[in-house]
Amino acid sequence: MAKKPWGGRFSQPTDRLVEEFTESISFDRRLYRHDIEGSIAHCRVLAQAGVISARDEKKIVEGLKSVLADIEQGKFEFTADLEDIHMAVEKALTAKIGEAGERLHTGRSRNDQVALDLRLWLREETGNVIGLIGELKAALLKAATEGGDAVLPGYTHMQKAQPVLLAHYLLAFWEMLDRDEERFRDCLKRINVMPLGSAALAGTSLPLDRKVSAALLGFPAISRNSMDAVSDRDFAAEFSFAASLLMMHMSRLCEDMVIWSTGEFGFIEIADSFTTGSSIMPQKKNPDVAELIRGKTGRVYGNLVALLTTLKGLPMTYNRDLQEDKEPLFDTVDTAKACLAVLAGMMGNVRFNRVRMREEASKGFTTATDLAEYLVKKGVPFRKSHEIIGRLVAYCLEKNKELQGLSLEELKKFHPAFEKDALSVVDPGESVDSKQVMGGTARKQVSGVIRKIGGKKNR
Amino acid sequence: MAKKPWGGRFSQPTDRLVEEFTESISFDRRLYRHDIEGSIAHCRVLAQAGVISARDEKKIVEGLKSVLADIEQGKFEFTADLEDIHMAVEKALTAKIGEAGERLHTGRSRNDQVALDLRLWLREETGNVIGLIGELKAALLKAATEGGDAVLPGYTHMQKAQPVLLAHYLLAFWEMLDRDEERFRDCLKRINVMPLGSAALAGTSLPLDRKVSAALLGFPAISRNSMDAVSDRDFAAEFSFAASLLMMHMSRLCEDMVIWSTGEFGFIEIADSFTTGSSIMPQKKNPDVAELIRGKTGRVYGNLVALLTTLKGLPMTYNRDLQEDKEPLFDTVDTAKACLAVLAGMMGNVRFNRVRMREEASKGFTTATDLAEYLVKKGVPFRKSHEIIGRLVAYCLEKNKELQGLSLEELKKFHPAFEKDALSVVDPGESVDSKQVMGGTARKQVSGVIRKIGGKKNR
Amino acid sequence: MAKKPWGGRFSQPTDRLVEEFTESISFDRRLYRHDIEGSIAHCRVLAQAGVISARDEKKIVEGLKSVLADIEQGKFEFTADLEDIHMAVEKALTAKIGEAGERLHTGRSRNDQVALDLRLWLREETGNVIGLIGELKAALLKAATEGGDAVLPGYTHMQKAQPVLLAHYLLAFWEMLDRDEERFRDCLKRINVMPLGSAALAGTSLPLDRKVSAALLGFPAISRNSMDAVSDRDFAAEFSFAASLLMMHMSRLCEDMVIWSTGEFGFIEIADSFTTGSSIMPQKKNPDVAELIRGKTGRVYGNLVALLTTLKGLPMTYNRDLQEDKEPLFDTVDTAKACLAVLAGMMGNVRFNRVRMREEASKGFTTATDLAEYLVKKGVPFRKSHEIIGRLVAYCLEKNKELQGLSLEELKKFHPAFEKDALSVVDPGESVDSKQVMGGTARKQVSGVIRKIGGKKNR
Amino acid sequence: MAKKPWGGRFSQPTDRLVEEFTESISFDRRLYRHDIEGSIAHCRVLAQAGVISARDEKKIVEGLKSVLADIEQGKFEFTADLEDIHMAVEKALTAKIGEAGERLHTGRSRNDQVALDLRLWLREETGNVIGLIGELKAALLKAATEGGDAVLPGYTHMQKAQPVLLAHYLLAFWEMLDRDEERFRDCLKRINVMPLGSAALAGTSLPLDRKVSAALLGFPAISRNSMDAVSDRDFAAEFSFAASLLMMHMSRLCEDMVIWSTGEFGFIEIADSFTTGSSIMPQKKNPDVAELIRGKTGRVYGNLVALLTTLKGLPMTYNRDLQEDKEPLFDTVDTAKACLAVLAGMMGNVRFNRVRMREEASKGFTTATDLAEYLVKKGVPFRKSHEIIGRLVAYCLEKNKELQGLSLEELKKFHPAFEKDALSVVDPGESVDSKQVMGGTARKQVSGVIRKIGGKKNR
Repeated sequence: MAKKPWGGRFSQPTDRLVEEFTESISFDRRLYRHDIEGSIAHCRVLAQAGVISARDEKKIVEGLKSVLADIEQGKFEFTADLEDIHMAVEKALTAKIGEAGERLHTGRSRNDQVALDLRLWLREETGNVIGLIGELKAALLKAATEGGDAVLPGYTHMQKAQPVLLAHYLLAFWEMLDRDEERFRDCLKRINVMPLGSAALAGTSLPLDRKVSAALLGFPAISRNSMDAVSDRDFAAEFSFAASLLMMHMSRLCEDMVIWSTGEFGFIEIADSFTTGSSIMPQKKNPDVAELIRGKTGRVYGNLVALLTTLKGLPMTYNRDLQEDKEPLFDTVDTAKACLAVLAGMMGNVRFNRVRMREEASKGFTTATDLAEYLVKKGVPFRKSHEIIGRLVAYCLEKNKELQGLSLEELKKFHPAFEKDALSVVDPGESVDSKQVMGGTARKQVSGVIRKIGGKKNR
Repeated sequence: MAKKPWGGRFSQPTDRLVEEFTESISFDRRLYRHDIEGSIAHCRVLAQAGVISARDEKKIVEGLKSVLADIEQGKFEFTADLEDIHMAVEKALTAKIGEAGERLHTGRSRNDQVALDLRLWLREETGNVIGLIGELKAALLKAATEGGDAVLPGYTHMQKAQPVLLAHYLLAFWEMLDRDEERFRDCLKRINVMPLGSAALAGTSLPLDRKVSAALLGFPAISRNSMDAVSDRDFAAEFSFAASLLMMHMSRLCEDMVIWSTGEFGFIEIADSFTTGSSIMPQKKNPDVAELIRGKTGRVYGNLVALLTTLKGLPMTYNRDLQEDKEPLFDTVDTAKACLAVLAGMMGNVRFNRVRMREEASKGFTTATDLAEYLVKKGVPFRKSHEIIGRLVAYCLEKNKELQGLSLEELKKFHPAFEKDALSVVDPGESVDSKQVMGGTARKQVSGVIRKIGGKKNR
Repeated sequence: MAKKPWGGRFSQPTDRLVEEFTESISFDRRLYRHDIEGSIAHCRVLAQAGVISARDEKKIVEGLKSVLADIEQGKFEFTADLEDIHMAVEKALTAKIGEAGERLHTGRSRNDQVALDLRLWLREETGNVIGLIGELKAALLKAATEGGDAVLPGYTHMQKAQPVLLAHYLLAFWEMLDRDEERFRDCLKRINVMPLGSAALAGTSLPLDRKVSAALLGFPAISRNSMDAVSDRDFAAEFSFAASLLMMHMSRLCEDMVIWSTGEFGFIEIADSFTTGSSIMPQKKNPDVAELIRGKTGRVYGNLVALLTTLKGLPMTYNRDLQEDKEPLFDTVDTAKACLAVLAGMMGNVRFNRVRMREEASKGFTTATDLAEYLVKKGVPFRKSHEIIGRLVAYCLEKNKELQGLSLEELKKFHPAFEKDALSVVDPGESVDSKQVMGGTARKQVSGVIRKIGGKKNR
Repeated sequence: MAKKPWGGRFSQPTDRLVEEFTESISFDRRLYRHDIEGSIAHCRVLAQAGVISARDEKKIVEGLKSVLADIEQGKFEFTADLEDIHMAVEKALTAKIGEAGERLHTGRSRNDQVALDLRLWLREETGNVIGLIGELKAALLKAATEGGDAVLPGYTHMQKAQPVLLAHYLLAFWEMLDRDEERFRDCLKRINVMPLGSAALAGTSLPLDRKVSAALLGFPAISRNSMDAVSDRDFAAEFSFAASLLMMHMSRLCEDMVIWSTGEFGFIEIADSFTTGSSIMPQKKNPDVAELIRGKTGRVYGNLVALLTTLKGLPMTYNRDLQEDKEPLFDTVDTAKACLAVLAGMMGNVRFNRVRMREEASKGFTTATDLAEYLVKKGVPFRKSHEIIGRLVAYCLEKNKELQGLSLEELKKFHPAFEKDALSVVDPGESVDSKQVMGGTARKQVSGVIRKIGGKKNR
């Protein structure tokens, strides 16, 4: 067992069980690139402050780059006794360049170092997630554009409600994703804050210029309080929440896609390449991708709860509990990215069955509200009109008719104000186009939105 | 049992058990003011569009104001058969003004109406929460200002780490609250979007001008997709998350205050008026307020989980599951507000025991890092310096000494570079003032921050 | 503001804000009956130990009964300055009977008192919940019995898989509920433990006989460690978890019922009395009950998280955080009971459309696995047989045929082992009855299960 | 890309993104031993039913054992295109033994297979967890036994309450762990149910004798409904909850150990081998193990939430969402086991500082309640007595005295009933021993409990 770099005051070696229990290198090795990037910047600042010589600066920077190359070429062995990525890199550096390596961890603690690494890494991954949201939005916009005038029943309570454009349906998810993107951008402001220089918790007595660190590492903001800086994981929790809402939105789309791909609905068919089969039932073709995304919502929610639980009631400042910030966050990033990519792929491999959609849009009295609003335009108070059309629906149910099949005479039995133009009001296509209100499902409205958001999609 | 306003097609009355199970009036009555405000705006838009007459508009507006007055004067009886606040207000209106009342719910569904009410209410409450955060920040700033040069041990892992200013400690929480405030402001952008006009899910065929509704109700933005608008509860979840982080921050402060008020720490005494006693133990004086705030973090987390769970995997668009959005949100708002107010009060009733703090800051080798950095300035590599001071600490432990009591000779035994000035480095006050780095705990740094944030506190 | 009963050492009155923040009487008043029941038992034990006189015992018992009567008759005013139900009852008692009332709270703390009250109350409610689970199980068993030989498609991945009996489907939920019942019974063992006598945390110096308290209050077990007893809320968390699984099971049944009541599936129609309508769409008839139960799963999960969060990391022993145990538990009990009752009602008001079910069971190649097992019986390895039938399904898809319509010649093209009896294998009814394996969906198996569980339902 | 074993009806290969997204072999490979054990039993049952020949049975069993050996010797390559452990094993088997291998997956689906594997695995791990709970209980019992008559202050609200035995304190955690053990045993009943034979969801048409499978695999119970059996994950959720409470209990012990190891408390010192140091502060010795266990409570809670979320609202029967059951469960098992083992180790490496404990037990008026009960024995009503001692405490605070230092004259000023024996009542040791009530902290009580539970610890 290696002597620990912090072992000066210790007389016993660390218990092997403890070493394995407390190590984080098995997962924080993932931060190696950002750790080295941060160390290079820190080394520059030490040199600029005169804490280390220009010669040592050069040796350290070159040494760190060499460690980086070793890791990327798979030449680096990560073992539990190295504790964490920070110690592993420092040890490898010192093995390479000798005493200069022992000067790197000056005016710095693992407390501010790990905060820095995590922020650098998450900043990059937030950009990746935003990019993938953009791809899913683009896939939805493409499907909406191609959907043209396809009409399907809109549902509330899973009961047919009113006819809507397929494009309008798809764009509703575009809106959700657009809010997700906004939330990630807001979160990014709070990720993008430079903690280095906070040292263990109090700052350092060495004359380090934190503005230089921030500039070298591209941070627009610098943390204002060293105690807060080493114990702040708000940005990780906020990212986890933004990812939770993102997953929730995807889970809703997937839920619909699963239902739509049933034989009973038959609204879509997902391509063979995006489905899988059964080990026992030869006929099966399952929407596994959609189901798994829906299911993975659980793990992302769980990761959020894990982080919030860990943070609750922690005394100031850094506590080892905070080591538990990484695994849930890593998993959330990986899950969100995988789901976005595969869902964008799947949405490009869905065939919409317009005939089935239109067929169902014509059933279930989906234009009853249009008839009610027709009477309103004739001066009938809406509450009365609603009652009248309700009775008309009851009549249809009894006679086993749809609204489209009613004669003007039948309508007039329910209210004398019905005239010939009422007969076209019940057509699903007419119904859709009548929703001219801003944000409504009329073709004109929807194509306007497509143009508008299509134009700014590459912002 | 009253005939339902939507009962046209129904042949059986609602089962009593169902009526009680599905009612929401027992809790959504809280939205009465916002419901009426929204209805007045909707009525204006109906009139402007020519859907109702100016005469009916006047009757409706006056009628709604009269209903509002009745509710505020406690003259209104809320019963389960009224279903929800929307139906309750409409029914009362029609009872007052007759047929004109039956014209109000035109081009509108409860789906967009409830989304509107909830947004109006939460917008107001977000303002209240931000105001209370400001009060707690002010209380912390006041305590920090009064704290002056009081020094206490800063902790990591609950072990003494380095001396810090009490003001620096308190301002760390100011920073957390400042981020909370920012998050609520970001959330407010997404709350502040006008959904009215989306009707059930598709929009309406009546020529309603949504820009007018938005203007009347003070909304800077209008929802862009009717299907999204009636099923979007992101803003409620986002508020719940922002409140969760806020509670987490308060739980951390409370955890410390509970520990600091133990006899063993003795760092603070909370005033009698902010503590309570025991039913059996005559000597007890308990920090109940701090404990309860810490405990209430659980319910706010739970409310977030409740909402996220309910939303997961919901098919489009509105589903009755969404009725479950209100109670957790109401509880979160009430809890957050109560905790902020009482914690601000408590922080103004805490007496800090500077003597005990300073006493403990002098123990536990809290200036060991200063000694290590002293040697760094003499050219010793930090890793070596750390090792040397580690052994020095082991020596002190064995000899039962503190760093402050060591002679220069003793220091020199560990490294020849120690000189006379090393003896003052170990003083906690000196240590604090040496942390001149930006964001560090030096008095000069901290008083600079106080001036800066004090100046903009009323932004 | 009233003088507090614990106020001897306090020189300032409690701040009004604090009084309102810390009171629990607004919700723990619900425990009044159990609090008084516990106090009567405690009083008996005090008298038996000679701590109070027989005369005082009589006065106290009669006084407590009188307080109980006052509360039940609505004559009791609950105000925040009474703090909690324990202090409220004691104060009312003393007001009625004078000094004897001041002797009741001897050898007892609110810490063991509230633990007792909560256990008494939850024990009773667990019985109620188990009773209601029995009612829902009975409703499912009744529907299964009446379902007879109705066949519907069983689904995996929401894709048609194999035909099953409706009764088999319904009994699957019976099994889930049976496990729920078992879990509540297991939990009851751990609820049913008597904490009184633990006093504040250390026990009491008075010679109280806890076996007598246990006997009087019907507890089969007595807590073994006073420190554990006053801080144990495991039983509340365990109940909350059992309720979470129960809600999860109900949410699954409700999900299916919502999907089955779509026009596209059309497998069920829920009676008018168990559905509601729309404020705008006259044709709507929504399965609100099923949706709300599904949605309420969120709040019960949230309550579990709330409790677990509150308990995490609490130092020993009682902390005021524990006051937060009650509201989530109350809400969970109320929600679970309401959902069980209304779901049992709804399941008795569902009409199953056997024709639609059978129609869909005949589509989607639901008997493909039967054909594959047919070939296995002819000696074909299953993996090959699966491949062959897979190709047969592809053929049918291309030719737009169902398995039932294939001729023997067509079958033989795929494998020569097919003989005439293969033609009946593809019939859904035959398919169902062939699943003779224990636990399978064959009519004989299912009716056997119905007899068996029907016989023991009143255990 | 390999041809899928279920690919008969598919015309396109699986998209590479989909293959990677849906694979589970990267984590379910962990079940290889249980998968093979289950397959051997299934093969025996197939042979017994005459579905396969005795010769094929022999080949399959030997083949499976050979695959097992390959995996255990690291000769097996797990790749994403193998999908999952079930397909991987079957494919390897067929590669070894040819056609006989294609006969194994008869009358079985991955749906019942994975349910079986998971139950076999979790049954074993539950045994392991129960064993480790036993070790931690033994460590606590040992420490309690060695603790002898060490007295420390018991706390409520973190304020000194009453003196208690260290042994009593430690045994409180023994009780919590004992309940945990009971809960895992109850859970085991519901894990230990045999699902094989349920096939995809409906059972099988082959004459498989499930009692034989159960006997071969050591299951005392057999699932009663095939649809329930393939979609039931209750046992996984229940285990996750039992582990959550277990973690919660450990988090409480760790919280106290962290606080007790502060310089201010100084109640314990954890051995060097169970602590770690700081990268910057040479003097630090941190209770990392205790902190990490406390922190890991978050991930176990999160895993429970993940599973509950995934299960909520799933339609019947198997859905791919259920694949998400494994990773959180695996992580919970690993975390619980690691924490139990390392905490048992740590508790054996804690040195209790009896002097400090006793010192603090004598401060803070911890025997005030004893004085109050003294007066009760003299006939003073408790509520009055509480008030009197409260004022006595206020007097001490003003005079800066402890109860132990008061003279009989001073006591008499507060109540004439005080006599000489009151002076010994205030001694912490006397106080402890006076708590003779069952479950109280008196030495006699506690040593009785130690004897009792020590005797049955090897049950």
